[in-house]
Amino acid sequence: MKILVINSGSSSIKYQLINMEDESVLAKGLVERIGIEGSRLEQENSDGNEFEIVQDIPDHEVGMELVVNSLTDGDKGVISSVDEIEAVGHRVVQGGDSFDKSVVVTDEVKKEIDRWASLAPLHNPANLMGVEVCEKLMPHATQVVTFDSAFHQSMPEEVYMYALPYELYEKHSIRRYGAHGTSHKFVANQVAKEIGKDVEDLKIITCHLGNGASVTAVKNGKSYDTSMGLTPLEGLVMGTRCGDIDPAIVPFVMDKEDLSPQEMDHLMNKESGLLGVSGISSDMRDIIEGAENNDKAKLAYNMFVYRVKKYIGSYVAAMNGVDAMVFTAGIGENAIGLREDICADLDYLGIKLDAEKNNVRGKAIEISTDDSKVKIFIIPTNEELVIARDTKELVAN
Amino acid sequence: MKILVINSGSSSIKYQLINMEDESVLAKGLVERIGIEGSRLEQENSDGNEFEIVQDIPDHEVGMELVVNSLTDGDKGVISSVDEIEAVGHRVVQGGDSFDKSVVVTDEVKKEIDRWASLAPLHNPANLMGVEVCEKLMPHATQVVTFDSAFHQSMPEEVYMYALPYELYEKHSIRRYGAHGTSHKFVANQVAKEIGKDVEDLKIITCHLGNGASVTAVKNGKSYDTSMGLTPLEGLVMGTRCGDIDPAIVPFVMDKEDLSPQEMDHLMNKESGLLGVSGISSDMRDIIEGAENNDKAKLAYNMFVYRVKKYIGSYVAAMNGVDAMVFTAGIGENAIGLREDICADLDYLGIKLDAEKNNVRGKAIEISTDDSKVKIFIIPTNEELVIARDTKELVAN
Repeated sequence: MKILVINSGSSSIKYQLINMEDESVLAKGLVERIGIEGSRLEQENSDGNEFEIVQDIPDHEVGMELVVNSLTDGDKGVISSVDEIEAVGHRVVQGGDSFDKSVVVTDEVKKEIDRWASLAPLHNPANLMGVEVCEKLMPHATQVVTFDSAFHQSMPEEVYMYALPYELYEKHSIRRYGAHGTSHKFVANQVAKEIGKDVEDLKIITCHLGNGASVTAVKNGKSYDTSMGLTPLEGLVMGTRCGDIDPAIVPFVMDKEDLSPQEMDHLMNKESGLLGVSGISSDMRDIIEGAENNDKAKLAYNMFVYRVKKYIGSYVAAMNGVDAMVFTAGIGENAIGLREDICADLDYLGIKLDAEKNNVRGKAIEISTDDSKVKIFIIPTNEELVIARDTKELVAN
Repeated sequence: MKILVINSGSSSIKYQLINMEDESVLAKGLVERIGIEGSRLEQENSDGNEFEIVQDIPDHEVGMELVVNSLTDGDKGVISSVDEIEAVGHRVVQGGDSFDKSVVVTDEVKKEIDRWASLAPLHNPANLMGVEVCEKLMPHATQVVTFDSAFHQSMPEEVYMYALPYELYEKHSIRRYGAHGTSHKFVANQVAKEIGKDVEDLKIITCHLGNGASVTAVKNGKSYDTSMGLTPLEGLVMGTRCGDIDPAIVPFVMDKEDLSPQEMDHLMNKESGLLGVSGISSDMRDIIEGAENNDKAKLAYNMFVYRVKKYIGSYVAAMNGVDAMVFTAGIGENAIGLREDICADLDYLGIKLDAEKNNVRGKAIEISTDDSKVKIFIIPTNEELVIARDTKELVAN
């Protein structure tokens, strides 16, 4: 069975065609700058073949047609006909409390994705557009949606509620939903496999550290708490997002700087985080390099590390213990020194990193000392594979 | 030496006259409803004598005159002349980063209190008014100010900074300042005495749980981190304050509900917390009673407990350990079951509460089990005594 995995953004489509017999990636690619000058597609096939197509891509339909053509092209393609694609799995950011797992697309499902767009105005409409274009271009294929928020639906009420007037929850569905659920679920399950135990018998803290970053307490295989909230702004210090702040700062700054709600939202989401503190970059690689002779870059780095430490501690308390910890995503998989700094001075919690084992990038590996009570891992995340597996399972049933 | 301790609010003056020879309270009282119909003074003397004066009190000067008269009155008073008051110690809420300890009042100090009023608009002006009235009525006495924020000035930069654009710190002094510093300092020092060790050799987590509530990580006698931030809104769930939320909720709700920054600030500070979630009360006693048959009161209670747990965990991580924990203030000293629930299932962190020892209210006592790695205490807070001690020391020098 061949499954196409789609991550449709507002001006881009990321895709992977996966052969589910052996879970190998036949081809992966990216359409970018849809509706913008300089639009293009790039694709890399499993045999190493790479190519680029530069052409006008006015909308997602044209973009998706180009994807199908690139996959089925007699020369460059990896399959002979679009009919070989048995199912398409789509990433959707926000399913609110309507979805606690992946589902086959129906009209009702599409209505719900549209309804939750109020909480993910940049993502859900683009995700939905991807679904609809694929329904049109591949009417024979089963369409499945996997939600970033679904894994976190297991959080208890006292964890997901905010101490705001209860009416705001009833009226506007304001609560913690979390994000990166597909990734947290994947790495938690992988860690259980590495340890050789059932994930249901483990307490795991998963650190998804990328440009967007979140930490999750995974208790008995289920998300118990996560650092992102109503939106992906809450929690850790991120590339351009502030994460946790005193909420009173928001009206205070709006008042002092005469900002609208939209402008303030932009300030916290796009001008803050590593970029806002350092003034030089939102990219952790630049921050680490800059920290050597730039005090503000050093400060941004230290703030990032300290915030992760605090979340680890709070989740150890929340679960009354932790068996394993895992680092994943761009920063988590690659920033060697940062992993070491996060784990430094946490031996009271039973966390001891082995500096030598830790000296690797992007490999699934254990990096704790032999006497560390808590096993620490790096696990490269693979959200596409989770989407493909969920899709396969739904097609089978 | 007799020292008068003053906590001057916008429409009230709380006072205590303390004999520093033995730190005994000669009299304590409250002037309330200043400038409002129904204004009055009540005083309780050390000999048990209590009285009330109901009269028109249009401003703080009249209020303070009434305090002096009540203390020196031939019948009801406890001293024969105002000249016996050698010094006055005033509580000031916000000293920003200008003050890391108590100081004798000068013109420069008053200017600074006024300058930091931007961050404590309800408190600093009223505190300053108290200082100025006392200077006028007791020109012979040394005036000293003690800042709620001073104890937290020892926090490291990566702890007190927010991941917002750095210019907001430079322009508007936006950073974490914390509050309840006098209380956190007092109970941490008391705990060290109880244990019989130097506070500089201890890691202590202090839980000041009252209508306003905060947790502090006290490392080697110094505040290392605290849950309140730029303002007293951040951190725990409080009587009417929301504490931590996704900051994106603020512009989201303002937009949906068409609220001004001031209205949103009011919603988060006055309509949220226990009151907002439960819909019944901001008072923990009502919440505990209501929780028996009201799901929302139960939820508010559980949220309060869970948030404290998370802070304890995060500070254990921040300090890489904890030697002692202490509960203080109205809720912390009196809510027996709540202390038990907060400490439940924290044995991984070495925290074990003894339910029998814990069955007390308002007493300085150890409440951990004999095999608890972390010593747990109740210590009734005494901010007035700290202010008086600081004042005595400054007068002596």
